[in-house]
Amino acid sequence: MNKIYIVGVGLIGGSMALDLRVSNPNITIVGIDSNREHLAKAKTKGIIDAESTIGEIKNADVIILAIPVDNALVTLPKILDNVEVTTLVLDVGSTKQKICNLVSKHRNRRNFLASHPIAGTEFSGPNAAINNLFKNKTNIVCEVEKTAFKLQERALKLFSILGMRIRYMDAKSHDKHLAYVSHLSHISSFMLGKTVINEEKNEKDIFDLAGSGFESTVRLAKSSPAMWTPIFSHNKTNVVEALDAYIDNLKHFRGLLASDSFPSVYQEMENTNTIKTILKGIE
Amino acid sequence: MNKIYIVGVGLIGGSMALDLRVSNPNITIVGIDSNREHLAKAKTKGIIDAESTIGEIKNADVIILAIPVDNALVTLPKILDNVEVTTLVLDVGSTKQKICNLVSKHRNRRNFLASHPIAGTEFSGPNAAINNLFKNKTNIVCEVEKTAFKLQERALKLFSILGMRIRYMDAKSHDKHLAYVSHLSHISSFMLGKTVINEEKNEKDIFDLAGSGFESTVRLAKSSPAMWTPIFSHNKTNVVEALDAYIDNLKHFRGLLASDSFPSVYQEMENTNTIKTILKGIE
Repeated sequence: MNKIYIVGVGLIGGSMALDLRVSNPNITIVGIDSNREHLAKAKTKGIIDAESTIGEIKNADVIILAIPVDNALVTLPKILDNVEVTTLVLDVGSTKQKICNLVSKHRNRRNFLASHPIAGTEFSGPNAAINNLFKNKTNIVCEVEKTAFKLQERALKLFSILGMRIRYMDAKSHDKHLAYVSHLSHISSFMLGKTVINEEKNEKDIFDLAGSGFESTVRLAKSSPAMWTPIFSHNKTNVVEALDAYIDNLKHFRGLLASDSFPSVYQEMENTNTIKTILKGIE
Repeated sequence: MNKIYIVGVGLIGGSMALDLRVSNPNITIVGIDSNREHLAKAKTKGIIDAESTIGEIKNADVIILAIPVDNALVTLPKILDNVEVTTLVLDVGSTKQKICNLVSKHRNRRNFLASHPIAGTEFSGPNAAINNLFKNKTNIVCEVEKTAFKLQERALKLFSILGMRIRYMDAKSHDKHLAYVSHLSHISSFMLGKTVINEEKNEKDIFDLAGSGFESTVRLAKSSPAMWTPIFSHNKTNVVEALDAYIDNLKHFRGLLASDSFPSVYQEMENTNTIKTILKGIE
């Protein structure tokens, strides 16, 4: 892997570039981005060596598509239309059904590998790119059997350089699970932030009174609306289902409080304390 | 301050003891706790020098009440009934109206100072006690005018040793604000954990698929039900109000998703992004 194109030089694309360069000092990394400031910043930061456009891609070993999932649906077919036979194209989007369905009949489907590295921070853009972002994290690979065998191997090598462990899954299951373990957390956090901001008109009050618990639960409310709106759109059915389950649980808890059923309130919390064991598995 | 009694040798009481001992190597710290294992652990860990009972308290400079808020309502009057005139009694509970109202007419009210250090972790017990837990954190002091002037001074000295900044507030406002910036976060986190556990029967799936975002939003679901049930009970009216506002905001967001109003979904998230500035104030 000597020539890599990164389409979208943000947090994910930029962080991948940083690690790939460490692994191979002779690598050439070319950036493609609609945001000229991001391209300039990525050059200054040593993330990319040069910039290009989709139409000019040439001799790529790997093209990494790391843009919001709605733009990926527009850009991926354009890339596949002209892809060279030896080039691997991989995406890193947080939804997988739409993109897999979109290219399922594409004549160059075998050049594409659908993946979703479960890694990131609440920040975005090339300034947020860091080394080792993916180390020991899970990468979900969907419909691996539809990718050419040699290109699968190349993808696995790349993921191994990043230090990721691979989990194979069909796209439908991916989107369902992620609605619960990721997308719902973001909505929960955004709406918690909204609720508190609406109540506490004086921001200074929040500064003074909130502790690390509040900070932890609303951290994701810093996330990028440009990234998250299309994720919610693509995964609407699953996200609405997860949100309904969450709202039902909150209403149930609210009912227990309102009716002074405190032994049940205790029980609800004790049952959920099992999350301790689960989180140990994540850490 | 040479003799301190800590009633409840857990995370908060234990952490205070650790810092107080650093500031004064000649200090004697006596522990009182209904949990014998916690007392033994606190001794082993050097948190306390000796153990005692409420009836045996003698020559205390300060008595720190650091037990769940329901137990505090039972124990505080017992302590005040027999308190020596030069002893400061302070509590650290997360609700302030009930305890302030309870002792408002007590003949020894002036020995008591109501406080709430905004500090902690999701862990509990003496094993969770750490040094510098309170450094640069806010301590809310309620109804300070009802405490004897000399004992106010002693409390401020103690808080200054812990490195806390003080904010004065009436008990009613305290409980209202904290429902939003703290109690609601805990419910949000517990119910998020419940929703995901219900869906993902196979815990291994959660291990593999969840990232740091999920971890951050459900961290508080590790919290102690014994501590939190009485907080929700004491602050029921405010907590139910905050929870209703939160559920309304979630339902609104759900409606926007279901009706494909994605520009509004974007706007909701962008409006809440102001949380970035607010969190900078907390950090």
